[in-house]
Amino acid sequence: MKTGTLYLIPTNLSAPFTPAHILPATVVETALRLNHYVAENAKVARAFLKNIGLDKPLLEISIRELNNHTRIDALAEMIAPLVAGHDVGLVSEAGAPGVADPGAIIVALAHQHGIAVVPLVGPSSILLGLMASGLNGQKFAFHGYLPQDKAIRINVLIELENESRRRNMTQLFIETPYRNHSLYADLLTTLSPSTQLCVARDLTGNREYVQTKRIAEWRKLVPTTEKLPTLFLLLAK
Amino acid sequence: MKTGTLYLIPTNLSAPFTPAHILPATVVETALRLNHYVAENAKVARAFLKNIGLDKPLLEISIRELNNHTRIDALAEMIAPLVAGHDVGLVSEAGAPGVADPGAIIVALAHQHGIAVVPLVGPSSILLGLMASGLNGQKFAFHGYLPQDKAIRINVLIELENESRRRNMTQLFIETPYRNHSLYADLLTTLSPSTQLCVARDLTGNREYVQTKRIAEWRKLVPTTEKLPTLFLLLAK
Repeated sequence: MKTGTLYLIPTNLSAPFTPAHILPATVVETALRLNHYVAENAKVARAFLKNIGLDKPLLEISIRELNNHTRIDALAEMIAPLVAGHDVGLVSEAGAPGVADPGAIIVALAHQHGIAVVPLVGPSSILLGLMASGLNGQKFAFHGYLPQDKAIRINVLIELENESRRRNMTQLFIETPYRNHSLYADLLTTLSPSTQLCVARDLTGNREYVQTKRIAEWRKLVPTTEKLPTLFLLLAK
Repeated sequence: MKTGTLYLIPTNLSAPFTPAHILPATVVETALRLNHYVAENAKVARAFLKNIGLDKPLLEISIRELNNHTRIDALAEMIAPLVAGHDVGLVSEAGAPGVADPGAIIVALAHQHGIAVVPLVGPSSILLGLMASGLNGQKFAFHGYLPQDKAIRINVLIELENESRRRNMTQLFIETPYRNHSLYADLLTTLSPSTQLCVARDLTGNREYVQTKRIAEWRKLVPTTEKLPTLFLLLAK
């Protein structure tokens, strides 16, 4: 029996959103055609599908949740429709599935079952932020969330800055919106005045903001952090 | 005087291509509206514009080349239209401008001049390959091209594998198509049997191929490298 295909479908980074701004037309068509989904958050996935123009009842679409609370024995259920020949869509809470989210585990399982995996084009704050930063896009690393403990986090920032200088590597990391201000304060006190910092906020949204400046310049400004999804990028010389 | 905006416009990874597969409709509209471009390769940029439906004479569009041969004193010319209030598009030879290409320098200059930088959604082999690999998308690094010298390259591969194991980090790198076979051979002989390798080729193209397997499994297969753009990703346990 022919197995299904696992489609990786990026979703909106910001809300509300206009599908034609952030998704190719055929990606929207593919997303609307599928009856099986694996989603980081089912409620967010339903909102996404309605926003891109779903015109069938949501109850006809099976959405299984895959996040940090998912039990490993639930993975077999997620793969089952694919093995049975149905196409499945994987969506994250925001942006590209499998990147900075727990979605990769189902993609790995698909490879193990010989199931075709097709990544589709759409928004990713990491990629958009890197493009817009003007920092080194020929060598970069993404580190996810930094440690919450202040002393440990400051040590990690010092290590990331040293590595950036040594390898000429852009370092990317994220923070939950309500802790942006505190991370930004740590960046300004910890990093060298000559290090370049890019703050990329609400990408693709109405309040999109991308600025790259040396730490010495950021220190002269009123803090611009807001409680919006933010990507931080640094490059040390 | 109001300055222009620098739009970062991703372009097709594979040819021929259908714009509706890889670009949001409003990104195509923005690209068609601009009269000033900075491009890694002017000929490739013209082909892209024709393929997305340009209906004005190409001669009306100014395209300045920015690549590894560009002299630094040409950068001022590229910024001039922005300073004069015109919008400018930045395009790479393929994929996202500013990522794995020399485009970041003009983005950095735009930030220095206080010019708005707007990254637009489109294809990136690095992002699509990472999504489709099923490897760790919560911590990863992109290294561009590896050294050409075989002995040095093998040492770099050993270092990348060790770092991947230590930091649980996916390592991404690319090779020019005609050297894929040789890099693939080095990967199979150098890496540990338990290391996972993803080969992602011709992403978004007619010959798209994405497979993730342990080195021990790859060794049992006929080499599948072809002279097509390929991204390699590894994760060591």
